[in-house]
Amino acid sequence: MMAAPAPEGFRPLDEKSLVEYMKATPALSARLRNQLDSLSIKEVGDGNLNFVYIVIGPGGSLVIKQALPYVRCVGDSWPLTKERAYFEALALKDHGRLCPNHVPEVYHFDRSMSLIGMRHIEPPHIILRKGLIAGIEYPLLAEHMADFMAKTLYFTSLLYCSTLEHRAAVAEYCGNAAMCRHTEQVIFSDPYKIAKYNHWTSPYLDQDAEAIRDDDTLKVEVADLKSMFRERAQALIHGDLHTGSVMVTSDSTQVIDPEFAFYGPMGFDIGAFLGNLILAFFAQDGHSSEGNDRRAYKKWILKTIEETWNLFHQKFIFLWNEHKDAGGEAYPSDIYNKPGVQVLAQKKYMRNLFHDTLGFGAAKMIRRIVGIAHVEDFESIQDAQKRAYCEHHALECAKKLLKERCQFESIDQVISVIQQIPV
Amino acid sequence: MMAAPAPEGFRPLDEKSLVEYMKATPALSARLRNQLDSLSIKEVGDGNLNFVYIVIGPGGSLVIKQALPYVRCVGDSWPLTKERAYFEALALKDHGRLCPNHVPEVYHFDRSMSLIGMRHIEPPHIILRKGLIAGIEYPLLAEHMADFMAKTLYFTSLLYCSTLEHRAAVAEYCGNAAMCRHTEQVIFSDPYKIAKYNHWTSPYLDQDAEAIRDDDTLKVEVADLKSMFRERAQALIHGDLHTGSVMVTSDSTQVIDPEFAFYGPMGFDIGAFLGNLILAFFAQDGHSSEGNDRRAYKKWILKTIEETWNLFHQKFIFLWNEHKDAGGEAYPSDIYNKPGVQVLAQKKYMRNLFHDTLGFGAAKMIRRIVGIAHVEDFESIQDAQKRAYCEHHALECAKKLLKERCQFESIDQVISVIQQIPV
Repeated sequence: MMAAPAPEGFRPLDEKSLVEYMKATPALSARLRNQLDSLSIKEVGDGNLNFVYIVIGPGGSLVIKQALPYVRCVGDSWPLTKERAYFEALALKDHGRLCPNHVPEVYHFDRSMSLIGMRHIEPPHIILRKGLIAGIEYPLLAEHMADFMAKTLYFTSLLYCSTLEHRAAVAEYCGNAAMCRHTEQVIFSDPYKIAKYNHWTSPYLDQDAEAIRDDDTLKVEVADLKSMFRERAQALIHGDLHTGSVMVTSDSTQVIDPEFAFYGPMGFDIGAFLGNLILAFFAQDGHSSEGNDRRAYKKWILKTIEETWNLFHQKFIFLWNEHKDAGGEAYPSDIYNKPGVQVLAQKKYMRNLFHDTLGFGAAKMIRRIVGIAHVEDFESIQDAQKRAYCEHHALECAKKLLKERCQFESIDQVISVIQQIPV
Repeated sequence: MMAAPAPEGFRPLDEKSLVEYMKATPALSARLRNQLDSLSIKEVGDGNLNFVYIVIGPGGSLVIKQALPYVRCVGDSWPLTKERAYFEALALKDHGRLCPNHVPEVYHFDRSMSLIGMRHIEPPHIILRKGLIAGIEYPLLAEHMADFMAKTLYFTSLLYCSTLEHRAAVAEYCGNAAMCRHTEQVIFSDPYKIAKYNHWTSPYLDQDAEAIRDDDTLKVEVADLKSMFRERAQALIHGDLHTGSVMVTSDSTQVIDPEFAFYGPMGFDIGAFLGNLILAFFAQDGHSSEGNDRRAYKKWILKTIEETWNLFHQKFIFLWNEHKDAGGEAYPSDIYNKPGVQVLAQKKYMRNLFHDTLGFGAAKMIRRIVGIAHVEDFESIQDAQKRAYCEHHALECAKKLLKERCQFESIDQVISVIQQIPV
């Protein structure tokens, strides 16, 4: 069922009206043990789209997220449906059911207010991207992200779901089409043409940006990826799984912000995560200092990229084997019943998924350098020439991965390419 | 929006209650100029699923089609949602809007009764499959079918539609999932395993059927096609576009029975039509007689296969060029703006579509020989040995097309393969 339009009654909250709202909402005030008189409230929405309040009281804490009807970093000249909060809440619940260890609990959802009340992912959790900039290693990150992706993607795919379940869920998430359209524009279109909000480290990357707009092979490949993004309902994907959508400590990994969620190609999620790790890798030289050349940290990032894919692969295949008679009917066991054929089928499936992952990951890298929304990994490099140098090499890597993606057989080969780019 | 369940009030009509029904339904009785007292009513549902009545009166004629809640040729042991009538009516209207010359007009739809009143496609129209068995040439068939497929597929694809329109339509047709599930079973699963309703010309084809169940390469390829069928919402497809879903005269071609319609891969429709023409080709030797060796007719079928694809290709590209600024956003003209790149993009798109077409067409051929529902082209060959001989060669052709589909560059090469199979 498609989402009905939000009922009337929307008003953006500020810190004061937020308290009134929580007082009137038992599901929220109970989380604070009804002690709402000396709250600390901090607005931390550093993203592009929403207000996010952290509410801490003597009895407990929580997070309130409210969607606004436009792109926050551009203003109301770029409207964006606040109905996305409905799909964010829905996806948080779906993801939470499938992978509770890595998804914050939803306490309350108010559709008319586009407001979600959810678990406060408490300190020392920080946004992964900030940890990567600071050079902090997260020994369980690959394991946790592989777990999150394997579970959320496998269990919502047709390897596990029946046709009827799957199509009902696809239909529901079709209601998030406005968010898909936004992605289509900022990832698959704008970077390849002259577009109002595009920017890059000028003048150093002027030629790079132009080269992308003039690269026919690249553009034809990007069109294929765009078609796949628009047409292929492979699984419920997060839709924006970059390193800013993950909160971490050394032993916890929490995936947040699935407001772009819909049924799309799995490689879009895996690629988003890996592509952003590759960006973090190329940004490291911009963050090196005399006492710390970041060489060891770069190695750790590469190891994390490698492990994330390999563990994802392993966990996904494990789930597939464990549930192969569950009713997904993609590879019924009375057809794919000989020792060899199941392995052959899985190899082909994972190989295609790997190529999709590289394509989408690379497209996400490109848009972060010459499109509208950049990443702090590079933006925090003060010296523009140094920043451009890092970005240039990330772009070269991305173009190679995108155009030659179908020739890669393993993540090792990807690591080699990353290392061979002369940064 | 997904289809709501049909309201109560369903009852299967017989010839008598049908007259009462039409009398009480102005949209129908008006088509007969309210002269309902000396009607000729004939039940002609020779398909597997429905009752179809041709109603002819002194004032006019019409067709009434009623869906039953099970597969007619198996009985109520195989239930099949009668909600399919809703999607058939919807698709007839969508197709009729896009290609009125080749789609019968809908006069009336009654959801609770799963009943469609529509234009009577009057004699001398016959079902194309019967014409092919009789050896009748249709000089405009390729032109008309190419026109129907180009228009219905192009205008419902993301080459033409916006993301928002497209996803809304995809969501609506997701309600026809039960019909998709049926297709998945009878086309992509049952032929590749031992299944209750499978049958073939035994004992002659026993080995052929077993070879298909044992062919790992074939089964892995079929799984890929099945995934594409289940995941890829490329355009509104008819979903059952074989030669039994087309009515013809020498100058008219009418496409009927889109009860399997949904947003799926375009190649499934084009392949269904071409695959059934290839079956008709291989059946000809079973219909040859002393005075008519069918050699000339076989040539005509091959020419029709070739022309159908080539004309489809031409018309599809024509629509694409004509409407390239319409807002489909698959290949925005400010990105694909150089002389070469648009051509490059179109070549790649059509090449992929061609390969999908061959894959789906071949899968449809196979299921008609070793699956549940066979085709009259072969069934009407009385001599079982002769029939098996024809079917065997059709199977060989289908396996080759399916497994090697990505190596074909043009329809000429397909024709060569068909001709090289030694029938």
